Amino acid sequence: MRIGFDLGGTKMLAAVLDDDRGIVARNKSKTTGIDNDGIFEQIQETIAGLLDKAGLSKKDIESVGIAAPGPIDMATGTILSTPNLGLKDFALSARLGDELGCPVYLENDVNAGLWGEFVSGVAQDHRHVIGIFPGTGIGGGIIMNGELFRGKNGSAGEIGHITVQSDGRRCGCGNHGCLETVASKTAIARDLALLAMNGQSPVLAEAGATDIKLVKSGLIKKALDAEDFGVAEVIDQAAYFLGIGMASMVNTFDPEMIVLGGGLIEKLGSRFTDIAARTMRERSMPRLVADVAVVEAELGDDAAVVGAADLADREHGGGVGAT
Amino acid sequence: MRIGFDLGGTKMLAAVLDDDRGIVARNKSKTTGIDNDGIFEQIQETIAGLLDKAGLSKKDIESVGIAAPGPIDMATGTILSTPNLGLKDFALSARLGDELGCPVYLENDVNAGLWGEFVSGVAQDHRHVIGIFPGTGIGGGIIMNGELFRGKNGSAGEIGHITVQSDGRRCGCGNHGCLETVASKTAIARDLALLAMNGQSPVLAEAGATDIKLVKSGLIKKALDAEDFGVAEVIDQAAYFLGIGMASMVNTFDPEMIVLGGGLIEKLGSRFTDIAARTMRERSMPRLVADVAVVEAELGDDAAVVGAADLADREHGGGVGAT
Repeated sequence: MRIGFDLGGTKMLAAVLDDDRGIVARNKSKTTGIDNDGIFEQIQETIAGLLDKAGLSKKDIESVGIAAPGPIDMATGTILSTPNLGLKDFALSARLGDELGCPVYLENDVNAGLWGEFVSGVAQDHRHVIGIFPGTGIGGGIIMNGELFRGKNGSAGEIGHITVQSDGRRCGCGNHGCLETVASKTAIARDLALLAMNGQSPVLAEAGATDIKLVKSGLIKKALDAEDFGVAEVIDQAAYFLGIGMASMVNTFDPEMIVLGGGLIEKLGSRFTDIAARTMRERSMPRLVADVAVVEAELGDDAAVVGAADLADREHGGGVGAT
Repeated sequence: MRIGFDLGGTKMLAAVLDDDRGIVARNKSKTTGIDNDGIFEQIQETIAGLLDKAGLSKKDIESVGIAAPGPIDMATGTILSTPNLGLKDFALSARLGDELGCPVYLENDVNAGLWGEFVSGVAQDHRHVIGIFPGTGIGGGIIMNGELFRGKNGSAGEIGHITVQSDGRRCGCGNHGCLETVASKTAIARDLALLAMNGQSPVLAEAGATDIKLVKSGLIKKALDAEDFGVAEVIDQAAYFLGIGMASMVNTFDPEMIVLGGGLIEKLGSRFTDIAARTMRERSMPRLVADVAVVEAELGDDAAVVGAADLADREHGGGVGAT
């Protein structure tokens, strides 16, 4: 049996997968740890709980694949730095491998999620796929020739940090006018919080959403459905900018498919993705964009778990066939 | 012996290469043909002249590699469309292969030039290299994991058409604010022609350079050296925008090296590339850009010939060792 594990900032999800990448058991917990040791202990507990539920023991595990945020040293399976989890130089593969007595493979969560969609979800049967996940920032993953595209440091795919407005807002990365300054969920939240402040959106004002932190995807959808003043325009503009970024990706990578995913996309659906796709088509080179499919991710929270487990299995010579 | 051939809009360059990719003979001609048949005839003549000079006959040729502008169908060796040469659905590989009795390999000229730098020039001993060539447009080539990066249609690398100004000028491709609208030689020529018009640059005015076509790289350098009003600012701004585009490439591809080349770069040198590199460093994610080298191409006009010959040799199983 294989285990997939998604180490998220708010929750952890562990799952047991069968040979067909089907999830046969899962265990979820709220992320509470705030440093290497605290997080490690909680990962152990979550896996122990999973094994209990599945009626398995440590020796039944062939491999573990972990999807984790932040820059990762792939060679050593180390999470280099993840401020919001308090992790620093966290040698998770080695530590958990020692504990469980099996190989532990660590992958960036965005790559793992896109890989899940590639092997079991909406991107099956494609070889050139770009994944874009607008959230707090904008996560990006790239599969070319059927493989994760990594670059020199294993950090390729920072699609949120392509410049779309050369004189735009300062970005957290130091640049100005990055895609994520105008097309992330955070960018939408920032603009909607002002509508709440100005009393223009009753739904947002009632939710106390002058606090950007409170503008979550569900609330954005609710304000949109209520047709509160200005809400649709803020959302449509973010989708438009996302489409501009997608066009730059089409022109440089020549992909078959762009997968859009994450909580914001799940809530807003085609209202958001249609504008992004139309803008992309208007702004890409015609001969490159003609048959590029734009689709919504379909595996939701399972994508990263499925992807991480599959990558671990491939890395450590398991039995799942090549796609 | 192998032949490399660069089919350019103004000239053709044919060369015989030895086993170490050294050029042992060359023949140049002015491009005068204006359709498939006219160009084909001229290619034949240029190769015949080359063989004469080298004291070789057709049967000595093992393979021919041709670097050509425009979108190419790699599977059939066909130039699909090149308006400025009047070419359309030009099955050059098949036609010339029949004529010469050897395999003829066709490659996009930008890719061929970057490949030349990769196997014999400034990018040797690297595996992740991006080439950017600001000219009439901005050509882009990408080598990842030691291979040309092609994408689904073989058209990846249209770096000139990433958006850097979402509300920018209309581009020939249909988009707005593409990199080449602000950082190509043509963009510089457009802005300098206005300085000539306004009488602000004596050097440009004297050269009749209110006509954009007359603003060539050599003249740009001359106006810069004369410290004519506004010239430096136009050039520096283009270099700055190039750096913004380079930063987007660093963040998405995570390369080791960016090679800048073409006539404009050759004339302006570090005056141009230093500003581009500094801007790139300021606007890329720090952990990605830390050790990215920015270098000027060194093979000049030979790059495409060397690259095309080498690609033909690899494709057709010749004797040059892998890099």
